[in-house]
Parts: sequence; C-alpha cells; structure tokens
Amino acid sequence: MTATSEGRSGRRGPTIDLIAREAGVSVPTVSKVINGRADVAPATRRRVEAAIREHGYLRPARPGRRAPLLEVIFHELESEWALEIVRGVERVAGRHQLAVVLTEMQGRRRPGQGWIEGALARRPMGVIAVFSDVDEAMREQLHSRGIPFAVVDPAGEPLHDTPSIGATNWNGGLAATRHLLGLGHRRIGVIGGPAGVLCSRARVDGFRAAMDEAGVPIDPRLVSHGPFQVDEGIATGRRLLARRDRPTAIITGNDLQALGVYQAAREARLHIPEDLSVVGFDDLPIARWVSPPLTTVRQPLIEMAEAAAELVLGIARGEEPAQTRVELSTELIVRESTAPPASIDAA
Amino acid sequence: MTATSEGRSGRRGPTIDLIAREAGVSVPTVSKVINGRADVAPATRRRVEAAIREHGYLRPARPGRRAPLLEVIFHELESEWALEIVRGVERVAGRHQLAVVLTEMQGRRRPGQGWIEGALARRPMGVIAVFSDVDEAMREQLHSRGIPFAVVDPAGEPLHDTPSIGATNWNGGLAATRHLLGLGHRRIGVIGGPAGVLCSRARVDGFRAAMDEAGVPIDPRLVSHGPFQVDEGIATGRRLLARRDRPTAIITGNDLQALGVYQAAREARLHIPEDLSVVGFDDLPIARWVSPPLTTVRQPLIEMAEAAAELVLGIARGEEPAQTRVELSTELIVRESTAPPASIDAA
Repeated sequence: MTATSEGRSGRRGPTIDLIAREAGVSVPTVSKVINGRADVAPATRRRVEAAIREHGYLRPARPGRRAPLLEVIFHELESEWALEIVRGVERVAGRHQLAVVLTEMQGRRRPGQGWIEGALARRPMGVIAVFSDVDEAMREQLHSRGIPFAVVDPAGEPLHDTPSIGATNWNGGLAATRHLLGLGHRRIGVIGGPAGVLCSRARVDGFRAAMDEAGVPIDPRLVSHGPFQVDEGIATGRRLLARRDRPTAIITGNDLQALGVYQAAREARLHIPEDLSVVGFDDLPIARWVSPPLTTVRQPLIEMAEAAAELVLGIARGEEPAQTRVELSTELIVRESTAPPASIDAA
Repeated sequence: MTATSEGRSGRRGPTIDLIAREAGVSVPTVSKVINGRADVAPATRRRVEAAIREHGYLRPARPGRRAPLLEVIFHELESEWALEIVRGVERVAGRHQLAVVLTEMQGRRRPGQGWIEGALARRPMGVIAVFSDVDEAMREQLHSRGIPFAVVDPAGEPLHDTPSIGATNWNGGLAATRHLLGLGHRRIGVIGGPAGVLCSRARVDGFRAAMDEAGVPIDPRLVSHGPFQVDEGIATGRRLLARRDRPTAIITGNDLQALGVYQAAREARLHIPEDLSVVGFDDLPIARWVSPPLTTVRQPLIEMAEAAAELVLGIARGEEPAQTRVELSTELIVRESTAPPASIDAA
C-alpha cells in the first residue's frame, strides 16, 4: 500500500507524508516518533505528536504488523489483588498465543515517558491499564498508532471514551447488608474505602439502601471512610469496638480492612462470629485462609481482567465494542465470620 | 559482519551456512528456526535443532540485536509468593529500562513449544525460570541463540550448569528451632514441605541440628512431610494437637501451612501463642496481617528474583558468572505467634 495524502478530509486518516510536512520534519523522523524510538529530540517529538494529535488516527503504513503481545500496566503490585488481575490477562493471552508484558509503576502515579516509548516500539496487540492513571496525551499516542486501550477499573472512575471494565459495587454493599439484616443485626458499622474513590461511595450507598429498605435507622457515628489497608481496619475497628454501644457487625471496604478488624477484635477479646460479625470485599484467596474464614463480597477480578483483555483484542480485530463501560456482577460469599448477634442468639 | 564457515573447529562457533548445509535445508529455513518462527515443518525443525545442538553456540548473524525484554516463566501464579518474585524482576527491569514478559504455565509441568518459539522470536536479554521445569532441549535452544538463562530456585534443586539463586534453607530451620528452644520449648512438632523437595529436607535437617546441639531428643512421631498448602497445616495440625502429649510449638514448612495450624488451633480452642507457638517459612506479606502476626523465617524472594535478573543481564553483557549457584540468607522474623510454653511461664 502506498502512502497517499488525503489529509484531514480523507476518510482513511492522514499519512506519514502529511504529518512530516505539517511538522516540518523528514518522513523517517515521523516514523521514529510513531515507533517510540528514543533518538528524537524532545522538541521535535512534541511537534510531531501535535501534528498527529491534530489529524487523529494515523493509518499504519504496514497494517497488521503487530507483535503478539498484550501490555498490562499496574500502579503497584501490592497484594494478591494484583495477582488476580495478572492471572486473568494470562488466561486470555494463553488462549490467543500472546505473551504478556507487565509493567509496574512502583508507586508512581502515572507511567513515564520511558514506558510509552517502549510500548509504542513493541507494537502490542493492545494495552490494559489497571486503574486509570494513563493520561490523555498517552491515550492519544496509543490511539494515533491504532493500539487499542482498555482499563480494568475497580475504582469505578471510568475515563471518558476509554472502554473500561468494573464491578457492581453498589449491589455488593446491598447484598452484604441484607445478609447481616437477615441474621438479625441492627447495629451495623461500616468501614468504607477512601471517600474520594467512587467505588467506596457506591458500596456505602448500597448499605444505606438495604438499611432503608428494612426500615432500620443508620447511626452515622458507625460509618466512616479510610484507606484500603489493614491498618485502617485495625484503627477504626478499635474505635468502633471500644464504644459502649458497639456494633454487632462490621462491613469493611475490602478484605485487608477486614483483617484489621480481626486484629482489633482479638485485642478486645471478642470472638468472631459469636461476638462480632465481619464482612469483607474482594474475596482474595486469603479470605478462605483466615480464621474464621471470611464472609465477603466477591469482586470477579480475574474475569474483569479477562474481559478487558478480550475487549482490546476485539478492537484490534476491528470490532466496535458494544459498550464502553461494562460492570461484572459481585457476589456475596458466606463463610464463617458472620452469625446472628449474641443477643438474638440468646433470645 | 559476513557469515563465514569456521565450523566445529572455529573458536567463534558455527555459522548459519554451516548449519544449513549439515541439515540439508536452506539458509532462510535455518534462520526461521533460530528466530522461533512457526512456519517450519516439525521434522525440518528437529533436523535443524539437531545440527545446532551438535555445533554448540550459534554465533548470531547480527549480534546485539536484542529486544529490551526480560522473560519470566512461572509454573503457577498461585500466591503472594509469585508476586514477590515478579516484583523483584520488575525492580531490575526498571533500573535497566527493560520490559518484563511474564508467562504462566497455568499448572502445566513444563513450558510448551509455543512458549519457546515465542521467546526465541522475541529475542529477550535473558530468561528467568521459577523452579526448574525448563527441559534440557529448551535450555539448549536458548543457549544456542546466546540467550542467557537463570533459575530462581527456592526448591533447592539446581540444574546442572544452569546458574541458579536459592536461599539458605538449612540455616532457616536451624534459626527457627534455636528460637523455640531459647523460649523453653522441648516438645517441638515439625510439619515439613514435601519429602521429595530438597528445601523441605534441608529445613528439617536444620531443625535436627539445633535439637542435637541443645541435647533435646526428637520425637519422630511429631515430625512429618506434606504439601506446601493450608490444608496440610490443618490436617497435620489437628493430628498433632489431638495427642495427649501434644507439642508446645510447631514449626511449619511455609506460611500457608502455618495458617492451617492457626485453623487447627482455633478448632481445638488453643490460643496462639499462650497454648501453642507457631513458626512459618517465607514471610509472605500475609504473615504480618494474621492474628497473631506470624513469627516466620524470611526467604528473600524479591532479592532472589533481583539477583537472578541481574545475573542474566550480566551474562548478556558478556560477564562470566562468579558462581553458578548462589544462596541468599534467610532470616528469622520474630512476631507474636511464639512465646514461652505455658508450663515454663507458670514456673
């Protein structure tokens, strides 16, 4: 296929020739920028990127020359949580005979220029980000090279126009609360995730809906927000359990917070579930292994990652995604950390 | 550099021409096999591989054309254990601006032909396998292409001639046992890893050495071997704790088994550490989070993976590894699951 200069009006998008003329550089220089090569001066790179951005999707000179790779980019590989996502992507990669390139940003908020240059040079079939810290400039760089991009978004903060896979957080909060209400609990404490993260809000809203539905008043002193960490479960758990009118059950924002509540209960010499019921969120493998095994809301992390990977591969095959936002079902998994409250038991 | 035919006697190794002549195929066919392309008939591939094997290391036609990739191959991404290894490799990759290609064999014993063809085609800087299930034919395929290969080998079963990184398992068993003896324990149970895995044997031998050193007799009925799983800890923990002369402390083969013993103790209404001390092995992140936090022998998994990654990159730069086998130090981490036995406490 020869490059032609249909420009902005051409339905097939601009060519490298056109970009080179607009940016006032040579065709090989444009080619270097497109392929993520490092040997281009930053100012030149910016000029070329601006021209690409202005003209939108860049028709590849040699379409179909994709490496059999799927890229996954992570904020931090910090718990089994991350492992579940990797396993989901690996499953899809295995089915399609692709290799998985894994990048951990090691706590940085966004992937650096080094990552995007590497990704462009590798020409993967698609890129999957976990959470959504890939900024707009980078999304445009991927888009202009025709590299599909999707987000596994457990936080519930989809990027405008970027396909994303989440989970039904609100329904999870609802199901956890209905379960406790059904056991006879009325004083239910909630340790939510960070107030600024949408999924935390959705889960607590699901709790409120279930309480309202049952006509049970909510004590606002028993509801709080904090980081998705064990330490938050310990600190807030201690505070809740030190109250004279302590809750008979605590719903946590994730399994790690639930482990913290286990620790706080142990310090207060309260037994789970006899003295206190605890519900987690995520259903990490560890939930089965703690004593007692944790009742929790399963977030289908493996399936979410699989769906994101299949989504980018579909786009790579030229399919239009049916929806840009999909939420997979959460499911309550009842184990041994929940039981009727002691007062009911004795009645 | 032009290909010359120095053959078996040439100190620079055979050329593609020579291999092609020996195998009775064309030079492009040899090139396809070398680069892991799929479009070669199996019989032809075997003939070419046999010729490469016979002549040893194949001098690359275009040396230095390596992709900025590190390959990691895993048996199974099954616990935080695997995550620690990935994090170690990611650290090194970050320092050298390399991407990490992660392959999970999803429970198969060995990587398949698809993986090795993919790896050869990607031309990575090096390959790191976790455990040692890459067979000799594949190791030769990597070697003949000059792709360095090392094994992260927590099992203690190094492959002959393959550089590997392990941990000092015997010393770990010794340190755990000395700690319990120092607290006053005399009846110490041991749940070891699988009897057929060397590291399990080394840890139990370290236990025996510490007991002998202290002049404390070992009750063989308290020492057993089994899989590195939570279920093994539950089953053997129940058996040990049901004895009239139950041990006052249990050393386990890994943290997962220790979690199983926690469960068995809970069922028997024994408190840790007041009624029973428990020691794990590995120091997974979860060891800090369980109640009570687990005393365990830290196996430096992140550092082991870092060392393996640096090792293959050193070989890629032409360095000769100083040792083919390195064992990094284990370290006893004392937390809250160990205390003096009740009888001593009361004395």
